[in-house]
Amino acid sequence: MVRGVREERELIHRLDSLGFAVLRAPASGSRTKLDRPDILAGRKGFVLAIEVKTSRKKTFYVRKESVEQLIRFSDRFGAKPYLAIKFKHTGLDWFLVKPENLVKTGKGFKVSLNDLKMKGESLESLVTKSLTEYL
Amino acid sequence: MVRGVREERELIHRLDSLGFAVLRAPASGSRTKLDRPDILAGRKGFVLAIEVKTSRKKTFYVRKESVEQLIRFSDRFGAKPYLAIKFKHTGLDWFLVKPENLVKTGKGFKVSLNDLKMKGESLESLVTKSLTEYL
Repeated sequence: MVRGVREERELIHRLDSLGFAVLRAPASGSRTKLDRPDILAGRKGFVLAIEVKTSRKKTFYVRKESVEQLIRFSDRFGAKPYLAIKFKHTGLDWFLVKPENLVKTGKGFKVSLNDLKMKGESLESLVTKSLTEYL
Repeated sequence: MVRGVREERELIHRLDSLGFAVLRAPASGSRTKLDRPDILAGRKGFVLAIEVKTSRKKTFYVRKESVEQLIRFSDRFGAKPYLAIKFKHTGLDWFLVKPENLVKTGKGFKVSLNDLKMKGESLESLVTKSLTEYL
């Protein structure tokens, strides 16, 4: 459930090729205590605030605070919060998932491949939805 | 006309206290060739893409490409492009200026204190304008 620098870079280029302008956060966030996502991607005013999670496991956990700060940031900014999840070595593409579709556990959220096959969205379907909603 | 890390951090905290959610770009941009501003600040969908310039001189120059990539990024994202300019050791506050209000020279743009006293905006007036326009 680390950020995964190489995967993140690939995601940024995908978003770029889908017409988004993209800004990624600095690698280490020691300087400020401000909320922030890993990636902000905007396309003519449709803005995604994205927290990137990669894992070699098919089930992993995400800290509550990680999701909560994403939601706070997004509310303030005027962005839609999403987690972008990559299950490494599966050959599967990114799953995009809204915080409200994550499974709650005691101390945070559980992310599983099986669950995301149901509730996750592909990047492309997200962009298509954005076109229908915003243009 | 460098970015000025300390000044930039101060600007980020100012924007934060004015109700913006703020993301700053990584310090060095060697990894990608994508356009990007130094700071993205959003407040309920009103988004500023900001290029930060600080100088000890009262007149300095900004490269054409630096401004052009800011405009390209902003157009794609759906943000308003601004340069945030701090004349160090003057005791003066930040000047915010739109690219179209910069003075063109042969290879770029000229920024002068005298000129910005006319054409620059304060952070607070920019926020007030955003309220009138967007809420």
